[in-house]
Amino acid sequence: MDKVNNQHAAIVPQLSVDCVVFGFHAGNLKVLLLRWKATDLWSLPGGVIYQNESLDEAAHRVLQERTGLDKIYLRQFHAFGDMGRYDKQFLVDRLGHVIDPDLWFDRTVSIGYFALVDYEAVHPNPDAFTDECRWWDLHDVKELLFDHCNILQVALRHLQLELSFQPIGINLLPEKFTMPEMLRLYESVLGKVIDPRNFQKKILKSGVVIKLAEVKKGTAHKRPFLYKFDLPRYKELVREGGLFF
Amino acid sequence: MDKVNNQHAAIVPQLSVDCVVFGFHAGNLKVLLLRWKATDLWSLPGGVIYQNESLDEAAHRVLQERTGLDKIYLRQFHAFGDMGRYDKQFLVDRLGHVIDPDLWFDRTVSIGYFALVDYEAVHPNPDAFTDECRWWDLHDVKELLFDHCNILQVALRHLQLELSFQPIGINLLPEKFTMPEMLRLYESVLGKVIDPRNFQKKILKSGVVIKLAEVKKGTAHKRPFLYKFDLPRYKELVREGGLFF
Repeated sequence: MDKVNNQHAAIVPQLSVDCVVFGFHAGNLKVLLLRWKATDLWSLPGGVIYQNESLDEAAHRVLQERTGLDKIYLRQFHAFGDMGRYDKQFLVDRLGHVIDPDLWFDRTVSIGYFALVDYEAVHPNPDAFTDECRWWDLHDVKELLFDHCNILQVALRHLQLELSFQPIGINLLPEKFTMPEMLRLYESVLGKVIDPRNFQKKILKSGVVIKLAEVKKGTAHKRPFLYKFDLPRYKELVREGGLFF
Repeated sequence: MDKVNNQHAAIVPQLSVDCVVFGFHAGNLKVLLLRWKATDLWSLPGGVIYQNESLDEAAHRVLQERTGLDKIYLRQFHAFGDMGRYDKQFLVDRLGHVIDPDLWFDRTVSIGYFALVDYEAVHPNPDAFTDECRWWDLHDVKELLFDHCNILQVALRHLQLELSFQPIGINLLPEKFTMPEMLRLYESVLGKVIDPRNFQKKILKSGVVIKLAEVKKGTAHKRPFLYKFDLPRYKELVREGGLFF
C-alpha cells in the first residue's frame, strides 16, 4: 500500500483543520466519519493547511472534498493544542501501513470547524488515508482516533450554545417541515426532551417560521401543517440573537 | 539596539497566541496594550508557543509575564489565520530596529485569548519588543499593529455574547459593588444604555448577587447599597446559562 506523505513544502507545519459535519436525518443528529484504510478505526474529516490559503479556505476545501458540497455553513469553534493529542507510537503500531510516522510531526495543533449540512445533499467521499466515509448516528459514536471524541464533544457544546441564542435549522431541515420535525431537531441537538406546546409557542412568537397552507401527506392519522423559514426574519434573529431555550 | 530573535528550535513555527486583556475601571472598559520600542505603534500582548506547552499554557505564561497575575480568567475565542495578517515589508520599514524580519515567518496563525482581570491587581510589564505596557480606554483605541484591531473587535463580540448567556463581573468588579457600578460594567461591554430598573430586577431575580447591609460611603447625596456575588449561584448560572440581556 502506498503511504501518504503528510509533509510538503507548501503546508503550514504542525497545523491542521478538523471538521465536525452535522446532518439531521430520520429524527437523529448525524456526524460524518472516515474509516482508516484496512482498519476499524474512525476519525473526523480533516487535513493540512496550505501556505497560500486561510484557515477558513482550508476547512472549506476539506469539506468540499469529503461531501461534494460547494456552499457549506461552517463555523470555526476552537483550536486544539494540548500536548499528546496523538501518540506517535500508536500511529506506528496501528496506522503504520497508511502513513509514514517519520513524516508526521510529534505535535500538531488543530483548528476545529463544525458544519451544518443537508444530509440528503452530501456525497460522502473518503480521502487518501481512508477506505470509507459515512454518516454515523451521534449516539453510536463511542471511540475515535486521536482526540477526535473530545473535538466532537466540544463542537456539540458550541452547537448547543449557538442554538440557545440564534435560530438553527436552515441548513439541517428540509425546505418544508412540520413542527414535530423541528422540535425533534432541537431535542436531538440539546439531548433532552422539550415540551412541544412551549416549543411551538416560542417558535411562532419569534416569527422565524411561516405556516403554509399545505399539510404533510402520507401520515396515517394526523396531517400536520408544514412550515418554512421566514428568511429575512431568520437572518435578523441570527444578527440580534433572540430565540432562547 | 539588540534585535529580538523570534526563531527558536523549541517553538512551534508559524503559530502564536495573542491576548486581549480586559479590565474595568472608573466606569470604563479597559484593554492592556504594549508600545513597541522607540515607536508610537501599539499592539496586544502576545507571544510564541513552545513545543512543550499547550496553547492555554502559552497564553497563561504570556499574561503572567505582562500582568504579574498568577490566576487569570482566560478564554480561547478564535484562531486568526488569514493570509496577510501582517506585511513583512511593513515590519522591515517600521519595526526593523527591534526585530530581524528575516527571522520572522512570512505567515503566522494566532490563537486569540481574552482575559478578564482585576484592574487594580495588574502590574503592567513590557516585553522584549516593547518600551511600555499600559491600560487604554477601549474607546480610545483607534489603530493597532498587525490585525490586532480585528482581534480586539472579535474578542469584544465574544465577551458580549458570553455576557448574554452567563453572568460576568466576578473578575472585573471589586468584591463589594453597587448596582450602578454593575450596570455600568454591562453598559460598557455592550456599548449601549440599559434601563436601570429592568437591570436591577433581572439581576436580583437571577439570585446572582447578595445585598449587603452596608452602603457605599463617601458619595455626596446618595448612599447606595453594596452587593457581592453569590458564588455558588454564580457558578451554577455559568454552568446552566441563565442571565439573558
